[in-house]
Amino acid sequence: MTLERLRLKKNADRRLKAGHLWIYSNEVDTAVTPLKGLQPGEQRLVESASGQPLGVAYVHPNNLICARLISEKPDQSLDLALLKTRIRQALTLRETFYQKPFYRLVYGESDLLPGLIVDRFDAVLVVQLNTAGMDALRDEVLLALREVIQPQAIVWRNDAGARQLEGLDAEVGLAWGELPDQVLAEENGCVFDVPVLDGQKTGWFYDHQPNRAALLPLVKGKRVLDVFSYRGAWGMPLAKAGAREVVFLDASAAALEGVQLNAALNGVADRVSTLCADAFEGLQQLQQAGEQFDLVILDPPAFIKRKKDQGPGEHAYQRLNREAMKLLPPEDGLLLSGSCSMHLAEERLQDLVRIAARRQQQMAQLVWRGGQGADHPVHPAIPETRYLKALLFRLVSQ
Amino acid sequence: MTLERLRLKKNADRRLKAGHLWIYSNEVDTAVTPLKGLQPGEQRLVESASGQPLGVAYVHPNNLICARLISEKPDQSLDLALLKTRIRQALTLRETFYQKPFYRLVYGESDLLPGLIVDRFDAVLVVQLNTAGMDALRDEVLLALREVIQPQAIVWRNDAGARQLEGLDAEVGLAWGELPDQVLAEENGCVFDVPVLDGQKTGWFYDHQPNRAALLPLVKGKRVLDVFSYRGAWGMPLAKAGAREVVFLDASAAALEGVQLNAALNGVADRVSTLCADAFEGLQQLQQAGEQFDLVILDPPAFIKRKKDQGPGEHAYQRLNREAMKLLPPEDGLLLSGSCSMHLAEERLQDLVRIAARRQQQMAQLVWRGGQGADHPVHPAIPETRYLKALLFRLVSQ
Repeated sequence: MTLERLRLKKNADRRLKAGHLWIYSNEVDTAVTPLKGLQPGEQRLVESASGQPLGVAYVHPNNLICARLISEKPDQSLDLALLKTRIRQALTLRETFYQKPFYRLVYGESDLLPGLIVDRFDAVLVVQLNTAGMDALRDEVLLALREVIQPQAIVWRNDAGARQLEGLDAEVGLAWGELPDQVLAEENGCVFDVPVLDGQKTGWFYDHQPNRAALLPLVKGKRVLDVFSYRGAWGMPLAKAGAREVVFLDASAAALEGVQLNAALNGVADRVSTLCADAFEGLQQLQQAGEQFDLVILDPPAFIKRKKDQGPGEHAYQRLNREAMKLLPPEDGLLLSGSCSMHLAEERLQDLVRIAARRQQQMAQLVWRGGQGADHPVHPAIPETRYLKALLFRLVSQ
Repeated sequence: MTLERLRLKKNADRRLKAGHLWIYSNEVDTAVTPLKGLQPGEQRLVESASGQPLGVAYVHPNNLICARLISEKPDQSLDLALLKTRIRQALTLRETFYQKPFYRLVYGESDLLPGLIVDRFDAVLVVQLNTAGMDALRDEVLLALREVIQPQAIVWRNDAGARQLEGLDAEVGLAWGELPDQVLAEENGCVFDVPVLDGQKTGWFYDHQPNRAALLPLVKGKRVLDVFSYRGAWGMPLAKAGAREVVFLDASAAALEGVQLNAALNGVADRVSTLCADAFEGLQQLQQAGEQFDLVILDPPAFIKRKKDQGPGEHAYQRLNREAMKLLPPEDGLLLSGSCSMHLAEERLQDLVRIAARRQQQMAQLVWRGGQGADHPVHPAIPETRYLKALLFRLVSQ
């Protein structure tokens, strides 16, 4: 099979040569190879302005990222065989780092499979096809996953916002096999009920798993507040590891029902309570009630989704951390401050926490910092794949 | 006791107000309060240009950093009582994070004790007094440590380069108590002989402890190379955790004698071998011999000690990582790339490894990143206290 070409402008090959996978629409020499008329998802041989072949990409004529590289080999298109090879490569990484089959199995670009996300809950796979290029291969994706993993069920969670930009419809439901009555995740010694069909994203967030684990040795006898708790992935293992009490704060009643369910599943319901409120309001309610915690965990959604949100977003992070600090004792309180905004540098988050602490005459010593789990590898040339921060501070009076 | 004043120039209080502890000599209003004639180590009440008291500092008239803040309270000078308070505060942090008494007990500025370093090996404390201000309180430091920790022995390792800048003599030896025949450190399930009197720095490097621990679950049956091994803190626990073989590479014959001694202490001598060579030469020797490893660990000394070393230093990091990669298999090799240069940003190290991998048609997926142990807390306003990086990559062919 000979692929049609996609010709880049002069110097537009630099990013690819650094290892990046994306081509922006203004980098294509449309006089030679027009984007107009290309089928979304079509595969093309990418070449430099001088005609040097750079690899194979799938395209989208109407998207700012108009092509994503699949392979640097000019004769290697994305097909069942390559999908299987790449999924096996992804699996090898997870099996090195995880004792049990609960992890993000495929993390898009970072696993050289742009547009494909697969979360694994033992024999249940939840799949997001986020680009037209990957959607065009939906049958091959199912086949490849069946052959490599031999799952019991595969679920589509094709309802991410990214699909709209690609002109793809939303679609949620069983893609193959038989879904068990209950899907469970195992993490840090706990089991969790995962709502794969109607929970947030794929139903679960594996990315903070090692950061959650880092808190386990610290909580014996302590009182913990888990803010933006979702279904309890941070706090539940702490309750099981000996925390005196864990309070879960979330704005979603459904998430907190999940917390109660998961507390029962793990035999820690007597140490768990919930507060359904907006995070900022909930923190203030707790302050007004005179509550105090030894450890507060903040795992907020991205406050800086786009560059233009930088100012207000940073202000929100600072305010959130400051409100959380008010619930700690004057000495030796612990604050886990997370951020999943790729636009917020780790050093900047540290600085926002420093400022928040200074405002109440305290010093926030940074005692531990963590990033994404190994199941969310960072593609070294794609900054967007490096997004997660977890900073642990001890607060002392100054 | 009323302290003499140290008057700052206009706007020179900004750094202190952000929480920083240092005052540079060009920030002092020497027309009002001359530095000339001050005794090194003398304590002064620092005030802003408008006369607002900012706290108490000890001074050094000839040093670029001419004063270090001890307390923000204008009536709180550094004395036995404050030393005890601060050492207790430092101890509380370590006891939260460490099961056993092996850690850096005091980390200078980060523990609000500028110029004081204390490493703890159970009942043996190794102390560095790095400033004239702290040296002036040597008797109080000994007393405070004796009262708070009740050690068996306290050792001076007052031979760091910093003392020269302060006009202080080098001094190594027993400061108090009785030194046991052998001083041991415990880390990650191993014991290590620590040469407190004649080893590097205090005899041991605790800072990478959690990063070393992160490798433990990954090495069963694997072959490991530990470069810049010193006495084996990285590789020994891996040998004990089931690595097939660990090769320790160091330029110091004394360090490698320590490796052999520690291998015997931990019952893993049959899985341990050593190579005494410059790191770059040793890596090339291993390449020429056709050796291959599943995991290579690079924990080099700081290649960028000053800003002016940035270019050559970065080149050295890149070259080191590239030479290490050549000893990995084409797929699934693991590379732990460390740096203790505070001038090398973590993202830049990631990028240097990306470049090194690209040169041999590989992608270096970043799968884990770690910083300093909790016994080396980062002072949130002092960038110099945040220096350690450990990045773990998986190498795959592209």
